[in-house]
Amino acid sequence: MTYCVGLRLDEGLVLMSDTRTNGGVDNINIFRKMYTFEKPGDRVITILSAGNLATTQAVISQLEERSKPKTERKPPLLAAPTMYEAARIVGETLHEQIKAVSECDAGESSTFNATLIMGGQIKGGEPTLFMIYPEGNFIEASEDTPYFQIGETKYGRPILVRAFDPAMSFEDAVKMLLLSFDSTIKANLSVNLPLDLIAIKNDDLSITFQKRLTEDNPHYQAISKGWGEAIRRAFHGLPDFEF
Amino acid sequence: MTYCVGLRLDEGLVLMSDTRTNGGVDNINIFRKMYTFEKPGDRVITILSAGNLATTQAVISQLEERSKPKTERKPPLLAAPTMYEAARIVGETLHEQIKAVSECDAGESSTFNATLIMGGQIKGGEPTLFMIYPEGNFIEASEDTPYFQIGETKYGRPILVRAFDPAMSFEDAVKMLLLSFDSTIKANLSVNLPLDLIAIKNDDLSITFQKRLTEDNPHYQAISKGWGEAIRRAFHGLPDFEF
Repeated sequence: MTYCVGLRLDEGLVLMSDTRTNGGVDNINIFRKMYTFEKPGDRVITILSAGNLATTQAVISQLEERSKPKTERKPPLLAAPTMYEAARIVGETLHEQIKAVSECDAGESSTFNATLIMGGQIKGGEPTLFMIYPEGNFIEASEDTPYFQIGETKYGRPILVRAFDPAMSFEDAVKMLLLSFDSTIKANLSVNLPLDLIAIKNDDLSITFQKRLTEDNPHYQAISKGWGEAIRRAFHGLPDFEF
Repeated sequence: MTYCVGLRLDEGLVLMSDTRTNGGVDNINIFRKMYTFEKPGDRVITILSAGNLATTQAVISQLEERSKPKTERKPPLLAAPTMYEAARIVGETLHEQIKAVSECDAGESSTFNATLIMGGQIKGGEPTLFMIYPEGNFIEASEDTPYFQIGETKYGRPILVRAFDPAMSFEDAVKMLLLSFDSTIKANLSVNLPLDLIAIKNDDLSITFQKRLTEDNPHYQAISKGWGEAIRRAFHGLPDFEF
């Protein structure tokens, strides 16, 4: 499985993904699920993927035009005039790829399906966050639903429901995401570190901050350990149930 | 869906279930998913159910021998010599019921499947907690895995992972369960109050405490509201991520 989250904050976009892929518990690997297309000063687009790894890698390879010699490549995402058009291109590529390897069904029920989160900004447009489905259609994050999760979403959802605030700082957003990922990792073997993090500030039109957080990252360890203790303290601070 | 949890504590057993059933979002009802068989001084057995409602109600009706006139009923669970034998009877009844209405497949993949948690104590034996599968087989809670969840289990798991301790008091256990249910209810429409709670103290051989917690229960409200605030405080108390 996988866990990825994309947030649309007042300050910009923050995206995080895990790196565990598994074809059964006896076949576990580390693969990047975060891909960025960047032309500094003009645009930055990041894609997070959950689902069949062959599908998502094929989609990214096609978007990078890796079948052409390096000098002849013109990745369509670097030419798209708007984020909407970029989402349309990615959705179409995704659906075509699933269809190419699925006998009958190229949608949600296909073994080869995948779902993507895409966030970014193109000069002249707003920072935008999309969720793109295996059918190729997509939805955009709004003020009412300002974040998307894909993959193993349930364990890490309660902390987002409780703590998310569009006005929060990037620092707080990353802290919240680390807690959401930590809750998931502690409960489910199919999600694990390292975690990939990217932050895109409004109108930077380039990567503002990017980092891979590994198991020995002191900040992750402090958050994970501190949260266990804070939860227990908070728990004991609540009124007792009386029998 | 449904959410039920059974805990095996040093002090005894605590079980909680929600009451929402749905056949689609336009067909929502309240049904009890907790059933107790009791002969005070001799035994107390509580069953929690998740899955097809017709299946679980049929299983309970059969276990209560409701096809016989009231005076002739001899519920097998009130006669079983051990909790193990009680689990065997329930598992067999469950599997037979699913088979009776499934064309081909009477297991996990059947539309009519259901999973049960059964906890209790019979005189001369230990307090015991079982998870019973649609196939009729079952597992017993051990020191390593001292609780079971069925239904919509993921949202409420992180708090159990963090806070569960077999030595905790009944009061703390109920508080933890309320948080686990509250996290689930806040994130998923298919689980809702009222909640049914039962506590069975070691060697009481009867119901120690039983209650239905409704939405206006002051304790539930205090826990739910207090937890939101406590989580936010705990969150802000953690070290900030530095960019």
